[in-house]
Amino acid sequence: MVMQEPIEFYFDLISPYGYLASTQIEAVAARHGRGVDWRPVLLGVTVMKIMGMKPLLETPLKGAYLYHDAPRVAAMLGVPFRHHGLKNINSVTALRAFVWLKDQDEGLALRFAKRMYERLWVRGEDITAPEAAAAEAEQLGVDAATLMDAVTSPAVKQALHEAVDAAVEKGVFGVPFFIADGEAFWGGDRLPMLDYWLTHHQWEKQ
Amino acid sequence: MVMQEPIEFYFDLISPYGYLASTQIEAVAARHGRGVDWRPVLLGVTVMKIMGMKPLLETPLKGAYLYHDAPRVAAMLGVPFRHHGLKNINSVTALRAFVWLKDQDEGLALRFAKRMYERLWVRGEDITAPEAAAAEAEQLGVDAATLMDAVTSPAVKQALHEAVDAAVEKGVFGVPFFIADGEAFWGGDRLPMLDYWLTHHQWEKQ
Repeated sequence: MVMQEPIEFYFDLISPYGYLASTQIEAVAARHGRGVDWRPVLLGVTVMKIMGMKPLLETPLKGAYLYHDAPRVAAMLGVPFRHHGLKNINSVTALRAFVWLKDQDEGLALRFAKRMYERLWVRGEDITAPEAAAAEAEQLGVDAATLMDAVTSPAVKQALHEAVDAAVEKGVFGVPFFIADGEAFWGGDRLPMLDYWLTHHQWEKQ
Repeated sequence: MVMQEPIEFYFDLISPYGYLASTQIEAVAARHGRGVDWRPVLLGVTVMKIMGMKPLLETPLKGAYLYHDAPRVAAMLGVPFRHHGLKNINSVTALRAFVWLKDQDEGLALRFAKRMYERLWVRGEDITAPEAAAAEAEQLGVDAATLMDAVTSPAVKQALHEAVDAAVEKGVFGVPFFIADGEAFWGGDRLPMLDYWLTHHQWEKQ
């Protein structure tokens, strides 16, 4: 049985755990000779509308826990992280830029997503405005004006809509979320379990 | 620095992940020469009332994921598990019995809690009625009639109330939940991180 499909990695830039997982997933996939297919999700659509939940950091008790948790996970992993303290972060434009770039050059889109994650979760700068996406993409050789036009085009808007719908159709309800060879995994905590699955392709101990 | 306090393990019998963690926590604690202090939580109080959330298995998308997830985690861990399919499970009486037993004999209470977990999550039998708690406790040498009286006494009801309030006061919002040397951990997925904490007592890599 040939199973060399890439690991589907569902991400939203506004999620601190999405950022943390983005620093780990490629190493897990590479141990199994697999690539990673980054796919955008809008937490505002899946979490809040479909599931009827509040944003995590605004949930009583859990919010305080998670605020303390993300930095300690980052420290344990040895990756830079800080809470940005910004309000009303919105990733729609940035993820539109991502799908537009991915349609042209997957590697470029991936480098863009990583820069945007670092912008928000390492440097603490906003990612909401089109200018933010344009500034990061420009560092990768993308023409800023072309990107600014692209993110307002109906075709690109529609492409992001379809990507999010496709994720929800597959049962994706949070970020980070991974799908590998038919199994779904929610949360960066599940990377060891994803690793186990890629090794054994069954759950029962032999 | 002497740190030999037991690991606080917050559990509710209705949680499949609480059950799964109950099969693992003692080994983690023992690796560090530590005991485990089992403390009851009522998910109906913390999750639903304080946090304003629906029960997990009734949450769109997430419910289906978790239904699939618990058995695969059990298989990977090599512990028995099955979905019981019972409706309206309530753990109030069973947890009252637990606090009553714990006040007399902590080891006995722990064996009782494990039996109740197995009753629900291995044998698929209800735990709601006082008779269920009495039947399991009787196997441990507890007088059934005395337990049936105890779980309706104002003092025992109050003791469970206070235990749950104390948990919420400490920020416990879900199950399983662990507190060790000032650090809180939510979810069985975090047992490796608890293990790391008990080893290093700091998050930054040296």
